This record gives sequence, structure tokens and C-alpha cells, in this order.
Amino acid sequence: MTEMANEILLLTTGGTIDKLYFDALSEYRIGDSVVGRLLATARVAQPFRVVELMRKDSLELTDEDRAAIVQAVREAPNARIVITHGTDTMADTARAIGGIGAAENKTVVLVGALAPARFAESDAPFNLGMAVAAVQTAAPGVWIAMNGTIFPGDKVRKNRAANTFEAA
Amino acid sequence: MTEMANEILLLTTGGTIDKLYFDALSEYRIGDSVVGRLLATARVAQPFRVVELMRKDSLELTDEDRAAIVQAVREAPNARIVITHGTDTMADTARAIGGIGAAENKTVVLVGALAPARFAESDAPFNLGMAVAAVQTAAPGVWIAMNGTIFPGDKVRKNRAANTFEAA
Amino acid sequence: MTEMANEILLLTTGGTIDKLYFDALSEYRIGDSVVGRLLATARVAQPFRVVELMRKDSLELTDEDRAAIVQAVREAPNARIVITHGTDTMADTARAIGGIGAAENKTVVLVGALAPARFAESDAPFNLGMAVAAVQTAAPGVWIAMNGTIFPGDKVRKNRAANTFEAA
Amino acid sequence: MTEMANEILLLTTGGTIDKLYFDALSEYRIGDSVVGRLLATARVAQPFRVVELMRKDSLELTDEDRAAIVQAVREAPNARIVITHGTDTMADTARAIGGIGAAENKTVVLVGALAPARFAESDAPFNLGMAVAAVQTAAPGVWIAMNGTIFPGDKVRKNRAANTFEAA
Repeated sequence: MTEMANEILLLTTGGTIDKLYFDALSEYRIGDSVVGRLLATARVAQPFRVVELMRKDSLELTDEDRAAIVQAVREAPNARIVITHGTDTMADTARAIGGIGAAENKTVVLVGALAPARFAESDAPFNLGMAVAAVQTAAPGVWIAMNGTIFPGDKVRKNRAANTFEAA
Repeated sequence: MTEMANEILLLTTGGTIDKLYFDALSEYRIGDSVVGRLLATARVAQPFRVVELMRKDSLELTDEDRAAIVQAVREAPNARIVITHGTDTMADTARAIGGIGAAENKTVVLVGALAPARFAESDAPFNLGMAVAAVQTAAPGVWIAMNGTIFPGDKVRKNRAANTFEAA
Repeated sequence: MTEMANEILLLTTGGTIDKLYFDALSEYRIGDSVVGRLLATARVAQPFRVVELMRKDSLELTDEDRAAIVQAVREAPNARIVITHGTDTMADTARAIGGIGAAENKTVVLVGALAPARFAESDAPFNLGMAVAAVQTAAPGVWIAMNGTIFPGDKVRKNRAANTFEAA
Repeated sequence: MTEMANEILLLTTGGTIDKLYFDALSEYRIGDSVVGRLLATARVAQPFRVVELMRKDSLELTDEDRAAIVQAVREAPNARIVITHGTDTMADTARAIGGIGAAENKTVVLVGALAPARFAESDAPFNLGMAVAAVQTAAPGVWIAMNGTIFPGDKVRKNRAANTFEAA
């Protein structure tokens, strides 16, 4: 495997995982991505690169945004790609990336969090660990890593009432 | 896949991941396993079961202890087994489990932490996430999930000076 | 000092300190008060009692709400009262309690947080520690404990642009 | 009050509050002081200065060490002094500082932690908040801030069996 193919590319697009809290405004906003800090805390020794594509709630992603994510996946020289993403439309983006993964021999894993990584109790570090593992061990294709499960990207949906991902 | 085979079995054996701190004695001790709490925080929706085998530093594991771990792996009806383990002799235990994994069509992932899970900054949740993902996606056999990497269990060692796992 | 007077009464009214995050709605809400958990983590050996008065952003407090807080302070048999409160109108409530503190020989300390206590990095535990200390050591009257400072309750304002409390 | 007298001086001497964990050695050691980080997280707006005097378990403090702490208190131009200290002999150091506080019109507060500040669940931020408040509001003299209580420095002891401070 070439060095580029071995490197893990992490594309950040926003979502709950990167939410900050602003008291003056009494609201949440998406801040700098926590991905780099989470990988440092986990003492990741793999070569990796973090690229910020956008910083949006996934409900606010436009068709152009989604096309930009698909393009970034297609053009990346990497065979291992992790995408951090808001959870509400994560499954839509997984379907948009669709056949690229398998066709180009790339393993693409989408991942997010149900609670901001900046919370003391968050699923973010566990979920990112799942994504980093799956991108090394899962077959080429598109996957979603949430709720302790590696779902095929075309067979998963978010159950908003239960706030959990489930097979679809 | 039968329900039992689908369930993830988590065997805990001790190690840094479960270290507590006692001020009165100015020393650490291995406490109740944090595995259940980490899985709850990660909102794991997979069926799983946690079984405590022992509560030891991995340098203190005897031949009998290691034999008990191997036996637990062999006798478990589960096809997906995660073992939390101290890091110093994790590779030894991986070798002891050896061919059982592939022979019995089981995926076994050993995992631990370089900093106690009770620390604010610990690799424990990320590592456990890696293990839970790898046990679902990696081929039958024995694996070690540390430092952001899924290592084949017979081709890894801990570099104690660097306090990191590396291919061997 | 009688036992009742010695006991610390903690009145909770809401505010950022108790903010939760809900992904499905992409919004925050005020949850169960974290005060009890913070006192347990701090291993507080003082007798104390926690009473929830309301659960509101301080910008949403009505005149009736503020009157209820003043009444609770007046009627409490305790000489040591801590009030957790949103920061935006904390100084208003301090002025409303006004002379009660000194007149009735009660030390009242208002405290809140600029980041939710559920965040890994929050001023909440430090601030609550300040309040619990000031309620034991400050003279009867009304005080605000924020930004590392014990302010007299009638000589402090929140600088919203700087998101910090300052002498006024 | 002059600016120097207003500034809070924080002297660090070691103890559990600053304990790190080293996996390679399977032991705890005292690391860089966490005091600066705790004050930053608490958004302390008071002027303060942190000076490291030593980095020891309090059971290892020699007579010379304790004399150096007393001297630092005596010679400091500050009227507000916080000392972070291991808990086992904190009361001894408080007695050694003894009458200096009241005689020189200085308020001195000793504080530590029963769990390392680097733990997710630690009494360290709450305790440091207590100390920073007490140093502003307590009368000149020597105080100990532990277990939610501001104790007079000559009337407190650590109950090692219960791992808690109590009036003596």
C-alpha cells in the first residue's frame, strides 16, 4: 500500500460533535473541530490528516454542500476516509457517496455524536474510535459508525424519536 | 447469525484502563470495570454482556490466569469477543489465544488504555470504540486495538520506552 | 449556632449551569440540577439541602419568579444560602434580595456558570466551591461568586460583550 | 489596598492534586501543577501569580521544605495567599505557618485534593474555588479548605481512615 493510501483522511463537516456553547447568546454553535484533540488524546500513531470541508448542522447542508463532500471523497488519494457529520442527515450523505467507495476501492466511514465532544459525557471519542477502526478493517464501501454499530451506509436510518441509529 | 453469536462478549481482566486512585494510601488500585459505563456513555445499542474474569495488572498475570482467559474465549458461545487487558503483556495473551480465533470462527479483540479511563484525558473510550468496531468488521482471528491501530495479534509488541504499540 | 442555621441551603433556579443538550432538536434545555452531583464529587462533608425553585433561563424570570426567590430566602431558617442562577440577570436578583441578608443575619451567595456543568471544561465546580466557601466566611449580606471573585451583590454587573462579571 | 496586596499568590508544593499517571511504570507521579489550567477554566478575572515551591507528596516534606513554605509566606508582599499541598500533612504545615497570617494581616488558605485534578471526577476544581473565595473573604489567619469546609488551620485534622478532614 502506498503511503498516501495508508494515511487516514478525516473530513470534518460540522454537526453536534463539534458544538460549542455560548452563554452570551444562550445558544450552541459549531466550533473548531475536536477531531485533532480526540486523536491526540487517543495517542493515535497512524498517519492521518484532518481537512475541514464545512461547519454546519447537517439539517442545513445544501445539495451543493453534499456534492462537495462527494467530490472530496472521489478526489482524495486516500483509501481510508473518515467523515465527521451531523447525525440528522448522515444517512443521506452516505447514500450520496454511494457506490464510489466500492468502485474506487475506498473505505469511507461516516461518524458523528449525539452529545457534543466538549461534554464530559459524550459518545464522540468512542464513536471516532469505531470509525478509525472500521476504516482499517471494513471492506471498501460506505459505512456509518454510531450507537456501537458499524452499519452499511445504505441500510441505516436515524430514528429521531429514539435519538438512535437503526438498521433500515 | 444466531443471537448468541451476534452478542458482543466483553471479558475484563484489569489493567490501567480500570485504575482508581486512593489518596490515603497514595497508590493506585484496579477498581470496578469502567466498561459498562463507557458503553452506556457511547449509547451502544448492540446486545452485549460484560464478564469480569480477574482484576490484575497484566505484569501480575500468572500462567493460570492466562489459561483461564484462553479457556473463556474457547468456551464462549459468542463469535465476537472483546478483552480489556493491561498493556504490558497484552501481546503475550494475544499469542496465547493464538489460533483459537480463526479456528473457531471467532473475532477476538484485545484492548486497554495507557491512561486510566477515570482520567479526564484518557485513550480508553476511543480504544474501546475501536475494539467494538473491529469485533464487528475484522476477520476471525485475534487482534489488538491500541494507538489508533488494529494490529494482528501475532505481529505487535509494546514499546515500553515509547509507551506505544508498534508492528512487530 | 443551631443545626438549621449551620446547614447550607442550596436553592436552584436554572441557568446555564444546568444546561443539557438535545441532539434531536439541536437545542439546549435546562435539565436536572447538577448541584447534588458537584457536591458529591467535591466530597462535601457539611450538612446541606438542595431545593429546586424553578428551572429557567434567567432572561425568562418574571417578577413573580423573582419574588418567589426573595420569599424563599426570607422564610428559610438557614443562615447560609447559596442560589444557583442564570448569569444574565443574576445581579438583578441580588438587588431584589437586597437588604434581607444583612437585616436577617443571613449570608446569601448567588452563583452560576458561563459554560454548562456538563461540559468537560466548565467554571461550574470552581464557582460552586467559591459559593460554598463564601457562605461560610463572608459577612451577612448578598454576594455574587463569579470569575474568581466574591462581589458585593449591589456592586456588580455582567459585561455581556466580554461575558464576564465586573465591579459596578 | 495596593495592587500587590490585592493580587492572589498561589504557591504550589505538590500532592495528589497534581498527580499524573505513568503506565510504563504503573505508578503515579506529581506532574506540572494544574493550578493555572483550573484558574483558566474557571475564567478567573482576579490578578494572580502561580509560584512552584516544590513538587512532593506531603508525607515526603522535610523540615527544610516546611521552613521554605513558611518563609515564602512571610516574605510575600501579598495579603492573599493560597497554598496547594498534599493532604496527609496539610494540617502540620498550617500549624507551622501558625501566627504569621494574623500577625502580618495575611489570609493564607491551604488546599489540596483527594483525587487528582486530572481525573474526570475530582474535588480539585471545587476545592480551589473554595480557597480562592476564602482568601478574599476570610479574616487574616491560616485556613484549610477541604471537604466543602473552611477550617481554622489550627483546629483541623485529616481522618485517614475516612479519607476526610474534620474539626479537631
